[in-house]
Amino acid sequence: MGFIEGPVMLTNTWNVPRVADAVIDWSIERNKSMGVDTWGISPVVTETSDQFLNDARGRHVNREHVFHAIDSAAGGAVAEGAVGGGTGMICYDFKGGIGTASRKLPDKLGGYTVGILTQTNFGWRPQLTSDGVPVGRELAQYKPLRRKSETPPEAQRPLDGGSVIVVIATDAPCSHRILNRLAMRAQNGLARTGSHTGNTSGDFVIAFSTTRRKKHYADALTYTAEQVIEQGDLINYLFWSVVEATEEAVLNSLFKADTMIGRDERVVPGLPIQETVDVMKKYGHTEVHLP
Amino acid sequence: MGFIEGPVMLTNTWNVPRVADAVIDWSIERNKSMGVDTWGISPVVTETSDQFLNDARGRHVNREHVFHAIDSAAGGAVAEGAVGGGTGMICYDFKGGIGTASRKLPDKLGGYTVGILTQTNFGWRPQLTSDGVPVGRELAQYKPLRRKSETPPEAQRPLDGGSVIVVIATDAPCSHRILNRLAMRAQNGLARTGSHTGNTSGDFVIAFSTTRRKKHYADALTYTAEQVIEQGDLINYLFWSVVEATEEAVLNSLFKADTMIGRDERVVPGLPIQETVDVMKKYGHTEVHLP
Amino acid sequence: MGFIEGPVMLTNTWNVPRVADAVIDWSIERNKSMGVDTWGISPVVTETSDQFLNDARGRHVNREHVFHAIDSAAGGAVAEGAVGGGTGMICYDFKGGIGTASRKLPDKLGGYTVGILTQTNFGWRPQLTSDGVPVGRELAQYKPLRRKSETPPEAQRPLDGGSVIVVIATDAPCSHRILNRLAMRAQNGLARTGSHTGNTSGDFVIAFSTTRRKKHYADALTYTAEQVIEQGDLINYLFWSVVEATEEAVLNSLFKADTMIGRDERVVPGLPIQETVDVMKKYGHTEVHLP
Amino acid sequence: MGFIEGPVMLTNTWNVPRVADAVIDWSIERNKSMGVDTWGISPVVTETSDQFLNDARGRHVNREHVFHAIDSAAGGAVAEGAVGGGTGMICYDFKGGIGTASRKLPDKLGGYTVGILTQTNFGWRPQLTSDGVPVGRELAQYKPLRRKSETPPEAQRPLDGGSVIVVIATDAPCSHRILNRLAMRAQNGLARTGSHTGNTSGDFVIAFSTTRRKKHYADALTYTAEQVIEQGDLINYLFWSVVEATEEAVLNSLFKADTMIGRDERVVPGLPIQETVDVMKKYGHTEVHLP
Repeated sequence: MGFIEGPVMLTNTWNVPRVADAVIDWSIERNKSMGVDTWGISPVVTETSDQFLNDARGRHVNREHVFHAIDSAAGGAVAEGAVGGGTGMICYDFKGGIGTASRKLPDKLGGYTVGILTQTNFGWRPQLTSDGVPVGRELAQYKPLRRKSETPPEAQRPLDGGSVIVVIATDAPCSHRILNRLAMRAQNGLARTGSHTGNTSGDFVIAFSTTRRKKHYADALTYTAEQVIEQGDLINYLFWSVVEATEEAVLNSLFKADTMIGRDERVVPGLPIQETVDVMKKYGHTEVHLP
Repeated sequence: MGFIEGPVMLTNTWNVPRVADAVIDWSIERNKSMGVDTWGISPVVTETSDQFLNDARGRHVNREHVFHAIDSAAGGAVAEGAVGGGTGMICYDFKGGIGTASRKLPDKLGGYTVGILTQTNFGWRPQLTSDGVPVGRELAQYKPLRRKSETPPEAQRPLDGGSVIVVIATDAPCSHRILNRLAMRAQNGLARTGSHTGNTSGDFVIAFSTTRRKKHYADALTYTAEQVIEQGDLINYLFWSVVEATEEAVLNSLFKADTMIGRDERVVPGLPIQETVDVMKKYGHTEVHLP
Repeated sequence: MGFIEGPVMLTNTWNVPRVADAVIDWSIERNKSMGVDTWGISPVVTETSDQFLNDARGRHVNREHVFHAIDSAAGGAVAEGAVGGGTGMICYDFKGGIGTASRKLPDKLGGYTVGILTQTNFGWRPQLTSDGVPVGRELAQYKPLRRKSETPPEAQRPLDGGSVIVVIATDAPCSHRILNRLAMRAQNGLARTGSHTGNTSGDFVIAFSTTRRKKHYADALTYTAEQVIEQGDLINYLFWSVVEATEEAVLNSLFKADTMIGRDERVVPGLPIQETVDVMKKYGHTEVHLP
Repeated sequence: MGFIEGPVMLTNTWNVPRVADAVIDWSIERNKSMGVDTWGISPVVTETSDQFLNDARGRHVNREHVFHAIDSAAGGAVAEGAVGGGTGMICYDFKGGIGTASRKLPDKLGGYTVGILTQTNFGWRPQLTSDGVPVGRELAQYKPLRRKSETPPEAQRPLDGGSVIVVIATDAPCSHRILNRLAMRAQNGLARTGSHTGNTSGDFVIAFSTTRRKKHYADALTYTAEQVIEQGDLINYLFWSVVEATEEAVLNSLFKADTMIGRDERVVPGLPIQETVDVMKKYGHTEVHLP
């Protein structure tokens, strides 16, 4: 229906219902008319699977975690790397997690901002590309993912290319139609880091604009709203912002995540910073600014 | 992209490219900058197959017909029955064609109008329902479609349930999103006449609002527009208007089309008015107002 | 991805996450490798809102209910009316709930069965049509929905036309593509009972075939499977079966549900059988076979 | 409906109907029962706009061109660069056109081939990336597109990022579902060359498998067919083949197209080979194999 009624939550696969349940509880506590005089929240909860590193069967996320997450949400710098839903993620066979980036358009294009947050859980190492440099291919022999020897063969690799969550937020006055088009361009940013949009699990993108609030019950037949015109530089640079910032957010998730030892002594190495910088220089990037 | 740049054309299957070609010619003649300083029209041409009755291989629609159709388009009463693209149509094994109907919302819902035009080429006779009355079942033994005896078996029935075109026009300020939702409700109107949305060819619905004009090249970053709120009675009665007017338009296409003799001495009977009225009365519709 | 890994659950809106959570628990208990050597179930849980009659804020569905529902699932006659997820439903301003119906194709069309189960929570009373007879219009003055006088005006009507769940099961060997096409034809069946596919909540249809089982991990590159050909009578009668059985399932949900008194002394009347039969006879249906 | 009945044609925007018309004529001449005993071809004709270089208003494609194109179609090496529908294309502000590439999977993955053909008409020069190297940025000052000075400002750049056609052919036994998924991965290949999937015109991808033929009229209810399993390495490497071969096909279209002078003395420079090789070497690609 084109609107979001609460927080956008990111978690791991099997805790989706637990998080959704807590979001409903949290909302009921704060809204006495919900379910009485008006309808209730449709929780937005997204997931990627952390079962390679995590004791997924343990279902370790509970109501208190969710309440804490919502109540402590704040503006400012975003924690990146192996935090929150990103804790158990694996990206290009390195440790993944949460990454964020944004682009601000120049004033002549409205000065709008496009912000991206990713939870990265996809990719095969040889595919990894950083600003066009084949970092994954060059680091193919760097510490591999380690598993216990008795692990059955079918668990020898994260599943089928994995999945990713991309959240797009903008203060440009975008219609439902344009938001959908922005969401589709996240795929370009993922592809620039090497993704083939692998088979299982599904890449998930959600886009929203902060520019309009909607009441449950309308007190009018129509509304009047400002909207981006789908023609010319503005729409194209909104698209390009999604592409670039998604690419950068994925890379940030890798640069900010350290090696992690998970269940059954499994080890997922963090992307080695110095080795990566060396590869970047080998490929003509003489100045490398780390995130 | 959410806009239409010219007329919505209805024709038979194989003349789609001929009609589209002529629409481009017509537009080029009237717009000297098209293809030079700005882009060109994307013709909207729709079709259903008339090959049961028509010499489809003959390709009898040409450039002059298209120019005449566009140049003579006018407001006022719409010709119905076996006219234009509807000439060779078959609907519920009776003669089909063009049908139209509309609904006007009360002033408290904005006074908006929803207009429907259909080109009907679908349905099996026993399915036909008029205002809930099983007219097709009651008239199952009425004159059947007639073919030459040497006709091969596979041509003994119009293909697979057929197809239909529905054009929805409204002066309600509907977004792309709402127009798409209106279009999806045409299926309910078709279903109320008996359609199972048969296998082949495809039912096609296009919806547009007359409330906003768009320039090819924007002279601003954003625009401000009035839009229907997707909540409450207005959106629901827009939907309901599509349902009712689509149903009525299909019935009108049947009531206005007479028996036609086509290629190879094939005959498609018109819906018999008196017999239909008699069936309606048998099923409790004591007053029957013919279209 | 085209497969279902567990039960299809039907519940009310806010208990979706509770039911999904319990389905995961139930699966974990029975599958020791899930989340260890293989991935886990994606629960399929559907909902319609019962907040007009029910204490929705109370969240009265729990883990035990779900385990009991799954463990006691059995073949044979399906309970209909105000049972299970259907308990608090309202359909055409009468008491709705669960309804089921099926069609079996003749042997020359493979003898396949199409089964439908609906949870009905939509419609305005004047729209209700039973086999084409305007039952809702004729019973417009029959006992209305009753609410406490202090109820605010916005709660005076179930929201925006409501919603419905339709589950389609078949033993015809249907591909993902055909199942999707079957699902889209449920809308025709709903329309035949009077629905305009109302604004809020969303009508939800899921279709599955019982003919193929899939392993999580393939031991081959390809498989060979029988599939329905999308041409001719078989595909059309599969479509028609969906249309007819969906219509019948909705009507059954109404005929099997009794008047219910819910929260805040609200009353939703059951469809009155005798009055309905009388209306059917008035409209020429001389023999009426009750479900 | 999941099948193609004739050739896949590529042309420029306004000649789509002319080409489609000729495809129908060509088919009618060769199939005497089409339109008599069976239905007719649905032509597949794709386009991108060449109006910057071409006298688009002149409509210079005719029936003879189409018949010649179909009749002379043959296996073997594919002509690339500024040929056929690719004649007037512009890609990353260099001369674009037709490009092709393919990948063959190893025998243990079935030995299947994925072939790609592109008609490239998109991109801004600074975006162009060749195997990760920012060729477009490095060649930003190389000969720009040249126009006559009196050209109005709005024509100073190909529209809005442009468009592209991607045709995917495979001998892997892919279902409609998998073909759709292959098609969606072409976007990744385009993104790897720098595309942001620009605003206007639309990127178009069509995918087909050569493994199954379908009759218009079925002589059975079901068929049995081999199909790729959507799990594991095969499906992922089919995806990856689409990504890589699409990227390579776009680059080939650039490397094979020479500078072109079009209408109104407009000039679009070909990608300069030596300068590009020099940039590749600057970015660590010590051995560069030209296509």
